[in-house]
Amino acid sequence: MTTTKTINLKNRPKGSPTITDFDFTTAEISELKEGEVLLSTLYVSVDPYLRGRMSDAPSYVPPFKLNEPISSGIIAEVLESKSENLTIGDKVIGALQWKETQLAKAENLRKVDPDKAPLSTYLGIIGMTGLTALLGLKEIGKPKNGETLLVSGAAGAVGSVVGQIGKILGLRVVGIAGTDEKVDMLKSEFGFDEGINYNTTENMIQAIQNTCPDGVDIYFDNVGGEISDAVLFNINKFARIIICGAISVYNNTETPKSLSVQPFLVKKSALMQGFIVADFADKHPEGVQQLATWLQEGKLKYKETIVEGFDNIPQAFLDLFEGKNKGKMVVKI
Amino acid sequence: MTTTKTINLKNRPKGSPTITDFDFTTAEISELKEGEVLLSTLYVSVDPYLRGRMSDAPSYVPPFKLNEPISSGIIAEVLESKSENLTIGDKVIGALQWKETQLAKAENLRKVDPDKAPLSTYLGIIGMTGLTALLGLKEIGKPKNGETLLVSGAAGAVGSVVGQIGKILGLRVVGIAGTDEKVDMLKSEFGFDEGINYNTTENMIQAIQNTCPDGVDIYFDNVGGEISDAVLFNINKFARIIICGAISVYNNTETPKSLSVQPFLVKKSALMQGFIVADFADKHPEGVQQLATWLQEGKLKYKETIVEGFDNIPQAFLDLFEGKNKGKMVVKI
Repeated sequence: MTTTKTINLKNRPKGSPTITDFDFTTAEISELKEGEVLLSTLYVSVDPYLRGRMSDAPSYVPPFKLNEPISSGIIAEVLESKSENLTIGDKVIGALQWKETQLAKAENLRKVDPDKAPLSTYLGIIGMTGLTALLGLKEIGKPKNGETLLVSGAAGAVGSVVGQIGKILGLRVVGIAGTDEKVDMLKSEFGFDEGINYNTTENMIQAIQNTCPDGVDIYFDNVGGEISDAVLFNINKFARIIICGAISVYNNTETPKSLSVQPFLVKKSALMQGFIVADFADKHPEGVQQLATWLQEGKLKYKETIVEGFDNIPQAFLDLFEGKNKGKMVVKI
Repeated sequence: MTTTKTINLKNRPKGSPTITDFDFTTAEISELKEGEVLLSTLYVSVDPYLRGRMSDAPSYVPPFKLNEPISSGIIAEVLESKSENLTIGDKVIGALQWKETQLAKAENLRKVDPDKAPLSTYLGIIGMTGLTALLGLKEIGKPKNGETLLVSGAAGAVGSVVGQIGKILGLRVVGIAGTDEKVDMLKSEFGFDEGINYNTTENMIQAIQNTCPDGVDIYFDNVGGEISDAVLFNINKFARIIICGAISVYNNTETPKSLSVQPFLVKKSALMQGFIVADFADKHPEGVQQLATWLQEGKLKYKETIVEGFDNIPQAFLDLFEGKNKGKMVVKI
């Protein structure tokens, strides 16, 4: 039997995950069955939401099992096929395991075209990342021309796309990020109107007020915590707050506390809604089409942080919580 | 010149308001002008939201001015009229001042019919209270038959109506209140399926789970604070949380802290929205009609706590924060 490198979940992290929570091991590859393909992993997506799956608290996706492989969005190449729909050399995307080589049912995979767009972008700008940005902003944010959009985690994978789509839709766009370099990038590369470096800003409430003089109509929240508390002081009547993620509190060991949002929401008749891209599956095909078109037209730019090497997948994931990525974090095998 | 008893705002309260924040004084009544009427106050509505207007922090309604009369929803009788639309003896409703006698423009008043419903109910069940319950539940809660509705401040003016409308719409309804007597009333008088006394319950998370075994689909929140924190652990996927009030934190001197709601909302794709009845003015006439019909059909019951005497208006207001009212608190002059 052939074996493959594999990365299992070793421990459920308490607080911040560390490299010792992962088990670098090998697994056997069983025989190819009818309807299956043998895959070689090409690109692995690492995403903050995976932190939730490492715990066994109830969430919108089931937790990873201990001593079993972690999985995420992966682009792979077909090495062998016992499916009519896929042939050797095809590139596919799917929710796959952190293994160098693996079997998968063809029906759970979608073919991607490397001539249409770089393979890694199917995990990012024209994949779940882009769809999260587009559908979160449109379906919950309901943007209207001339409104002010504030984005936290703005230099991250989703945030950088949200801001650009905001500009396409005619919004004033302000981004919050953690270094001056990132803030510069928001403005020079992604067309944000203004940026705030939360690490060097003493008074976030004031900084948001200064950069959003007409108040905040839409807040696309990737971070939660104190940054999001400060935003509440600046929301306009009928503001929409899209809760896409809360990376700042994912590693908390206690249920995190922050400002009571209720008084702010009632004062401003504001809406706050959790967004999960999977809930809008019926809008994915149209969304991907829209993103691909904008990309081709040069209206959307994307940034990737590509880490190389299978063994570096866990570290790349850990680096997300240090903000070491600019744009989408992907591991190339 | 004639004078009238009047109650002014003396101090902006820090924390809980006290009786010394009010100034019992007299004011002059100027001459009746064209288009005006002279009114004698009959019923005065006292409501938790008035606390917000006593501070000068920005809110959805402008703050009261110091050393000027407080105002709220009032039912009055026309004593003299220089308006074509109102004659002596007419009963009217309007946002009026805490004065025994006052002038008002007829155009800002609406005639009410004492033969159709008791006068005080125009301030309650078929007034803003009923509309708040009906429109908050329908427009934000979007109830579906068979879902579970949880109501905090359930024995209060709005809460007791919310629960009854929930039953009319086919929901399982659970109420949270502060005494056993109130909890009994919810079940025996208002048809709630279950009730929780938060003052005698040690583990609110568990109590909500026990009384809402299928989870909470809609949470109508009148109180905020720790009670609402406990609800978050019990919300279902796609839950809707209507933030109608946050009486538990209105008197806090510091911006209150509570659990970070963001992780809960994103895990459950849940919505939380501030509700202010004035935002839905276009739906008021139809709503009043619906409430009046249910009332006539005996499907809606209402409870009033009627305090007597003009000088008792401030104390009745203060008693709201002690939960001394059952149902709508009204002062009869």
